[in-house]
Amino acid sequence: MKIVFLGTGAAVPAKNRSPTSIAIKFNGETFLFDCGEGTQRQMIYTDVSPMKIDNIFITHLHGDHILGIPGLLQSMGFNGRRDHINIYGPPETEGIINGMLNMGYHSINFQVNVYEIPIEKPYCILESESYKIYSYPMEHSVPTLGYVFKEKKKPQLDIKRAIELGINVGPDLKKLKEGYSVVSKDGRKIHPEDVLLPPKRGISIGYSGDTLPLKDFGKFLKSLDCNILIHEATFDSSKKENAFETMHSTIEDAVNIGTIGGVEELILTHISARYDDSMEVYLNEVINLSREKNLNITIAEDLMEFPLKKGK
Amino acid sequence: MKIVFLGTGAAVPAKNRSPTSIAIKFNGETFLFDCGEGTQRQMIYTDVSPMKIDNIFITHLHGDHILGIPGLLQSMGFNGRRDHINIYGPPETEGIINGMLNMGYHSINFQVNVYEIPIEKPYCILESESYKIYSYPMEHSVPTLGYVFKEKKKPQLDIKRAIELGINVGPDLKKLKEGYSVVSKDGRKIHPEDVLLPPKRGISIGYSGDTLPLKDFGKFLKSLDCNILIHEATFDSSKKENAFETMHSTIEDAVNIGTIGGVEELILTHISARYDDSMEVYLNEVINLSREKNLNITIAEDLMEFPLKKGK
Repeated sequence: MKIVFLGTGAAVPAKNRSPTSIAIKFNGETFLFDCGEGTQRQMIYTDVSPMKIDNIFITHLHGDHILGIPGLLQSMGFNGRRDHINIYGPPETEGIINGMLNMGYHSINFQVNVYEIPIEKPYCILESESYKIYSYPMEHSVPTLGYVFKEKKKPQLDIKRAIELGINVGPDLKKLKEGYSVVSKDGRKIHPEDVLLPPKRGISIGYSGDTLPLKDFGKFLKSLDCNILIHEATFDSSKKENAFETMHSTIEDAVNIGTIGGVEELILTHISARYDDSMEVYLNEVINLSREKNLNITIAEDLMEFPLKKGK
Repeated sequence: MKIVFLGTGAAVPAKNRSPTSIAIKFNGETFLFDCGEGTQRQMIYTDVSPMKIDNIFITHLHGDHILGIPGLLQSMGFNGRRDHINIYGPPETEGIINGMLNMGYHSINFQVNVYEIPIEKPYCILESESYKIYSYPMEHSVPTLGYVFKEKKKPQLDIKRAIELGINVGPDLKKLKEGYSVVSKDGRKIHPEDVLLPPKRGISIGYSGDTLPLKDFGKFLKSLDCNILIHEATFDSSKKENAFETMHSTIEDAVNIGTIGGVEELILTHISARYDDSMEVYLNEVINLSREKNLNITIAEDLMEFPLKKGK
């Protein structure tokens, strides 16, 4: 249960940062968010296995977020993958992926399903027993989606209360958890709400993709009780104009969205190659804002692993 | 004047080797041979500038030799390139490159000329005042070309002899070099062949791409007076069967071709990821064969620079 930062760089190739890619490892599944050139090679320095990835989420169709896909798919084919893979992205993703499937001779013998997500409003785009994944329309120079990964937590059983009420421990507890009523040892009907505590807070991770800062995205994160926000912060705040012109965010922008979202952890990524030689200015701003806003801020680094604690 | 090995790995991503790409820097021009995923990032660790590359030569259309092209072209566009670029490759290259030009939003505002080279026989595919570049049909699982870069050397003037013959030093020497006859101080007609020595041996570099060993390629190198051969040697010779099945070469194969070619320097590249943890077996074979055949053999490493001496 962790986030693995495979690439934390921006559009221009950087010495210390591969272009953007983030893997979330959750309950045996691996979700890949963006896949810049070189992502498959970054994986071999981590425990992220390409064969375990069943879902790839693309924020937008700029090269530094997608050009690792052809190589990743070809390597999956080379290694004999047969399981289908799902790729989600903004409109026009399907044509791009189809083009990628035609890049030279290869052995991709598995199904690649592409889902184009409309960018007009947020959607729940994927749901399982244990998680939901949402898209959120962002604001960049090309159609862009942010994503939220949200763990679904089941209600918890108040065992002490259940024993007080005289419930037969075992199958009856399971039934209550599944939402059925049972009969206690002394014949009383016991309903789930009599013994269930509200579910623990699950893990909920927001990811901005490339974007201008969007207050409404912060509110969306708040509504989903988000505890971790991965937000792009291409520039420090002295480069505010560059950020605005290129439709990116500064450190301060990211902090503002994190504050609106009420997150506990803010992780900054998509960091410009201009900081390749010195992170001093960037780092100082992070330290100051972290103190000022009383917010945990982490600057993502390539191959950094961020652990996800259960029920955090 | 040097060869820069940007990537020296094979099909499977390796910890220590980026997929194949080789730059030849010659008289202010940079020639790129193959361009695997991650090539543009490898360049920033060297003095190879993407903006100085006007000609890219693709050996074959396998991902580990071409998937760095979209990112390289997009970065050239991002950096405001206006000069056209030429891409040479085997049949079907044009469709692949056109597909690559459609990979997401980008700003490639320069002309990309694609030249598909027939694979039936060798061709001189590019010629300038100072070099010729040849293609040679290789034998791999898909249509593949080897290449030879050959420096053109002009005849050298025998100054001592010219003075003996009483030639007016200055413009007359230039005329003789350009092939014209002149008149000496004492009125004799002097022809170029009277004072010109045969040209020095130029630099001539062969590159195999991925291939089974081809004796005829060795003979072709010999006919071009090749002094440096960059040959794939994916496997050590104990993996001869793997090499044959996958249509690759072993170290011994490469040495044989180099010997037939009469080269002075053999550089091995496209080295399997299986040697990521230990090069011992590979290295031992190289040392033994080098001694046995009295041949300089270098195992290419990522970012290795191989100097080219003038008139070597």
